[in-house]
Amino acid sequence: MGTKGKVIKCKAAIAWEANKPLCIEEVEVAPPKAHEVRIQIIATALCHSDAHILHPKFTKALFPVILGHEGAGIVESVGPGVTNCKPGDKVIPLYMPQCKKCKFCLSPLTNFCAKLSQFKDPIIQQEVMEDKTSRFTCKGKPVYHFLGTSTFSQYTVVSDTNLAKIDDDANLERVCLLGCGFSTGYGAAINTAKQTQSGEDTNCRDPTHLHMATPTFSLKVTPGSTCAIFGLGGVGLSALIGCKVAGASRIIAVDINSEKFAKAKALGATDCLNPRDLQKPVQEVIIDMTGGGVDFALDCAGGSEAMKAALDCTTVGWGSCTLIGVAIGDKGLTVSPIEILMGRTINGTLFGGCKGRDSIPKLVTDYKNKKFNLDALVTHTLPFDKINEAFDLMHQGKSIRTVLTF
Amino acid sequence: MGTKGKVIKCKAAIAWEANKPLCIEEVEVAPPKAHEVRIQIIATALCHSDAHILHPKFTKALFPVILGHEGAGIVESVGPGVTNCKPGDKVIPLYMPQCKKCKFCLSPLTNFCAKLSQFKDPIIQQEVMEDKTSRFTCKGKPVYHFLGTSTFSQYTVVSDTNLAKIDDDANLERVCLLGCGFSTGYGAAINTAKQTQSGEDTNCRDPTHLHMATPTFSLKVTPGSTCAIFGLGGVGLSALIGCKVAGASRIIAVDINSEKFAKAKALGATDCLNPRDLQKPVQEVIIDMTGGGVDFALDCAGGSEAMKAALDCTTVGWGSCTLIGVAIGDKGLTVSPIEILMGRTINGTLFGGCKGRDSIPKLVTDYKNKKFNLDALVTHTLPFDKINEAFDLMHQGKSIRTVLTF
Repeated sequence: MGTKGKVIKCKAAIAWEANKPLCIEEVEVAPPKAHEVRIQIIATALCHSDAHILHPKFTKALFPVILGHEGAGIVESVGPGVTNCKPGDKVIPLYMPQCKKCKFCLSPLTNFCAKLSQFKDPIIQQEVMEDKTSRFTCKGKPVYHFLGTSTFSQYTVVSDTNLAKIDDDANLERVCLLGCGFSTGYGAAINTAKQTQSGEDTNCRDPTHLHMATPTFSLKVTPGSTCAIFGLGGVGLSALIGCKVAGASRIIAVDINSEKFAKAKALGATDCLNPRDLQKPVQEVIIDMTGGGVDFALDCAGGSEAMKAALDCTTVGWGSCTLIGVAIGDKGLTVSPIEILMGRTINGTLFGGCKGRDSIPKLVTDYKNKKFNLDALVTHTLPFDKINEAFDLMHQGKSIRTVLTF
Repeated sequence: MGTKGKVIKCKAAIAWEANKPLCIEEVEVAPPKAHEVRIQIIATALCHSDAHILHPKFTKALFPVILGHEGAGIVESVGPGVTNCKPGDKVIPLYMPQCKKCKFCLSPLTNFCAKLSQFKDPIIQQEVMEDKTSRFTCKGKPVYHFLGTSTFSQYTVVSDTNLAKIDDDANLERVCLLGCGFSTGYGAAINTAKQTQSGEDTNCRDPTHLHMATPTFSLKVTPGSTCAIFGLGGVGLSALIGCKVAGASRIIAVDINSEKFAKAKALGATDCLNPRDLQKPVQEVIIDMTGGGVDFALDCAGGSEAMKAALDCTTVGWGSCTLIGVAIGDKGLTVSPIEILMGRTINGTLFGGCKGRDSIPKLVTDYKNKKFNLDALVTHTLPFDKINEAFDLMHQGKSIRTVLTF
């Protein structure tokens, strides 16, 4: 291989400071060290989390940085000790690692991984590689990584725990969405939205410390379920696809931008509501429409009001409210305990509860087998150099996903 | 039967108005109508929910009223259509009905019953019988029922959906606690505290509207679990008993009154913490003690601070925070979405998730078989006439439960 072991000079979009457009620059990408993989990114989309970092309210970001966490590419070279992929393999970089060794990875209950080293705010983690250095430089300065992925670069370096090897015939301009938005929304509907009741005291079946899993009764999105989805961006529409694939009989789609409704209906929404057009709070309208509230509410919007409406519109007894979105500077969700005591559950998920190295390859195969369609989510395709145009489209609510190609 | 079909004159404690001691009065108790049962109460304990109604901040209470919802007695007579008990049967009145017909009763996911007619605030429900009239009068005035139970009376009338028939040899001076406090705490630990992950998309196994139950993976309190319990009153100690019976390896008991700790330790607490004695927030201490947080936190205190600490002290990945207590005038729990997105769940329960008519008889049998001990919870036994003394003991934090006998 011509480039193996050498620094690669290539194009990347650098965020030099907050609240400014990205700059397309030539960067140097160092070769992968042990348990690292250098990837040629073929396609990358962008997501609100990339924009959050640039928001002036978000004071914890480190600059300069190469953002991007929804990409797909081809392995260029691997460092010593890498066994889960080889040069030429198609891969999706993962912002949620899966080390397969920590207590979280060993549990079926979570997709969390202890490698997300600082738990308080994973959104700003992984600015450097495990040896505390960066593989990127630009104009002689080191450039921070982002979320362990940094897909806004023609070449990037990721840990071997942070990538999923996928089918050789995968369409990278579509399955790049599985790197974040699609998996987050779809997985939340398929994996996370649930309510359980174990009923009678049962005997323990596993006396180990990890007390791995005892079967119980669970309600998850299945044929007959009623669902409400708040926020119809890429994540919300992916949650909608998840509810539809799971067979929900009623899917109520909520957004303050009615222009999103045509696509939501095309993807399976049975009802669309714009809270600004209603005479009373949207949760009351949903309760009336469903004779007491939905089984599942999925909040993909992330603001206090949307989260509250999502919780309130679920039925007593077993209503499940799944939080998926995060809004910067948000006041949070204020819960009256009686809402919970009436049998509701609040749960949430990062990356849709997907253990990335295990689940993403299966989702790629599901896509290939037409279990769901990603085309509807890709509203724009642009050359990588037009990345700032893609941010503008997102901020203006004109795009669902823009896929950038190199 | 000498009294069947006739009005019974007997002793009851009347709350004539808020924030005043109860008055022991002679009341008239009308015979049971269709699907109603008149019960001679043999023993009743009291609970903070009785005191809440008397709190001046609680403006929705109706007076005069006969409070009490943690009692046990013997059926005196039954109205037409009653088939689930007969005169002479020992019974426990239930504030949570179980009609066995509504969609909630037919679901294994909840102990809720549609007969709790107004869902917003069940605490003040059932002030009258189903025909909208009361069976109590005092000094010529109708007196309201409370929670469908009104056990602060030598005789009471309840709906046949609001009682559990129990073993003939049950000790009513102990199993009366199953009417609320014990079942609420113990059931929360056994039934409600849980976290699930369904992992991969599974095929639906039940296409009906109620989509009854698909097995999944669940973490509940089992051998090896770590638990934290906030608030060591009757409910909290019962939750502690539940965690102990379920085999939890570590039970951290938290209260601002260190006098509760001896009893908590006797019942199985491995550690006791008084937040007022600590140099940093109790949740941080618990996270340090457990290497990252507990599997389960059960809040039996009900204030904003305790609820927040309970949520915060659970581990990322699968921490489950169960809300059990309600504090009057509370500001609620403010949740930052990232706390939930990290894999935590907030759930809650009324009456410990117990479907009363099914579960309470089994708990009575479990008590008889010494699966758990109720004696430790009964700190005082007083004649019914000293009911105000019992309230004082509760308010002063000197009692766990006072059992009143007629």
